[in-house]
Amino acid sequence: MLSEQAKQAIEFSRKYIKSGQASLTPEIALAARKGADEGNKYDLPEEVTLKAVDEGGVKGEFYLRADSPKAVLMFLHGGAYATGTVYSRRKIAIKLGQAIGSGIDVFAVDYTQYPEGRHPAAQEDIMRAYDYLRGLYDQVLVFGESAGATLALTLTLQLKDEGKKLPERVSVFSPVINQLNTSASEYLRTERDPMLVGATAPVPYFDEPAKIDPLISPIYGDFTGFPPLFINCGSEEVKYDSSAILNNLCEKAGVDVQWHVWQDLFHVFILFDMPETDLAIKQIGEFFKAGVKFD
Amino acid sequence: MLSEQAKQAIEFSRKYIKSGQASLTPEIALAARKGADEGNKYDLPEEVTLKAVDEGGVKGEFYLRADSPKAVLMFLHGGAYATGTVYSRRKIAIKLGQAIGSGIDVFAVDYTQYPEGRHPAAQEDIMRAYDYLRGLYDQVLVFGESAGATLALTLTLQLKDEGKKLPERVSVFSPVINQLNTSASEYLRTERDPMLVGATAPVPYFDEPAKIDPLISPIYGDFTGFPPLFINCGSEEVKYDSSAILNNLCEKAGVDVQWHVWQDLFHVFILFDMPETDLAIKQIGEFFKAGVKFD
Repeated sequence: MLSEQAKQAIEFSRKYIKSGQASLTPEIALAARKGADEGNKYDLPEEVTLKAVDEGGVKGEFYLRADSPKAVLMFLHGGAYATGTVYSRRKIAIKLGQAIGSGIDVFAVDYTQYPEGRHPAAQEDIMRAYDYLRGLYDQVLVFGESAGATLALTLTLQLKDEGKKLPERVSVFSPVINQLNTSASEYLRTERDPMLVGATAPVPYFDEPAKIDPLISPIYGDFTGFPPLFINCGSEEVKYDSSAILNNLCEKAGVDVQWHVWQDLFHVFILFDMPETDLAIKQIGEFFKAGVKFD
Repeated sequence: MLSEQAKQAIEFSRKYIKSGQASLTPEIALAARKGADEGNKYDLPEEVTLKAVDEGGVKGEFYLRADSPKAVLMFLHGGAYATGTVYSRRKIAIKLGQAIGSGIDVFAVDYTQYPEGRHPAAQEDIMRAYDYLRGLYDQVLVFGESAGATLALTLTLQLKDEGKKLPERVSVFSPVINQLNTSASEYLRTERDPMLVGATAPVPYFDEPAKIDPLISPIYGDFTGFPPLFINCGSEEVKYDSSAILNNLCEKAGVDVQWHVWQDLFHVFILFDMPETDLAIKQIGEFFKAGVKFD
């Protein structure tokens, strides 16, 4: 049964989410970022030190907690490659770090979005950020939500392709694995998902959304050798089929994959304060913790 | 419960269907047509007169039964725009005509396939055939299976676009509405559907299978004003999501649409002799009959 907070989140979303990504103009993207920041004011916990980074093409912010950190969590926010911000996800990023353990730092990547840039700008940004983190930490965990989940997958697929060291573990929340929004869940769940309208035009960030390219649509990726992966999604998502197919691709490729479908919940519900979010963060924390060496 | 014949058809198919459309070379296409013809020898019933047509870009064969025909059934075979033949579907085409009623002729269109041609050759062929039939008959019904079902949809969408008279009714069996085989059913049912391997490369007939074009992938079509439509498919199909989305698009567009999902059955099971096929033909016949004026 859904919590009262979850029911309120659904009602809240239903009021604001009416139109699709078809209308994602530069103005709307920038206004959405502003709204996201204003709606998610958050005071850093005392034990967390903020450290902004903007050097050598790496942009983002550290949430440092550990004296002798054992690992870093690379946090990739979502927002259709256009509307997301690092600031608006600070709380989730920090809570995820806390859920993993006391030896964990967090780095939230401020990657290029539309309209400032287009593909492959974000991919290049996160590849650089990953290399940077690999230079600082022995172990790198990766979490992404929505478009950030896509990036968590495309990052790992490219690393795999280049024979580089992979993240120890990856967790994706409400992943999108195909830039063409033509799966059945896009059509059949569009009245059920309060957060997103389904079957819309591709996001404007991609010039060639239909291209058969795993770094655009990870549905075309080879997941053999992928690190342990934890997928979370809501049962009502228009993006549900992305999770179902991703899980299937990983099962067939022999990946250590887990898939948690949250009954009656919606796209990236983790962005809302509610007991289900707390539980999801706890479970994702445990999944990551199991992949980190603390000694 | 499945008939014994259906169970045998599933076993038979499992033996022969192993690889995907990725390997649909010209040689394989031509060999498949030959095999289809040899496996479907059929003596015409006495009351049926065969009349081959090859004039003015219209190619196909009539199965004439009526002294003063009230309507014609335009029959569009499937086969991935490559492997199908008119001959191998004679029996089904004639049986469908018989199921509609005694005033019905049937015309099976021999449209261009790969490797002889590529898109839009088949579309142009069936548009010409439809105009030809409209010149001979007051009422035109359209039936298509698999790729022929796609063509039944693209035919009607183009007619609608051009403001031409539409078929009185349309029935599609195991339709394919997206040339990119990336729906969830393509991944999740590939071990369940004995007739087709899912999630394969697009068929070679299309140069631009990813193009956002309703005459390539009718998932992008506007179904407003579409004539009454009867969809049939099997619950186990890798193409199941095509039917689910098509039904949804038509419901939303206010089309008089019916969708029959045949439990435990597979892609174009109508090609096999079995009680389920007889029942499907009976139901499709009744659907068409209800749309024909016989007086």
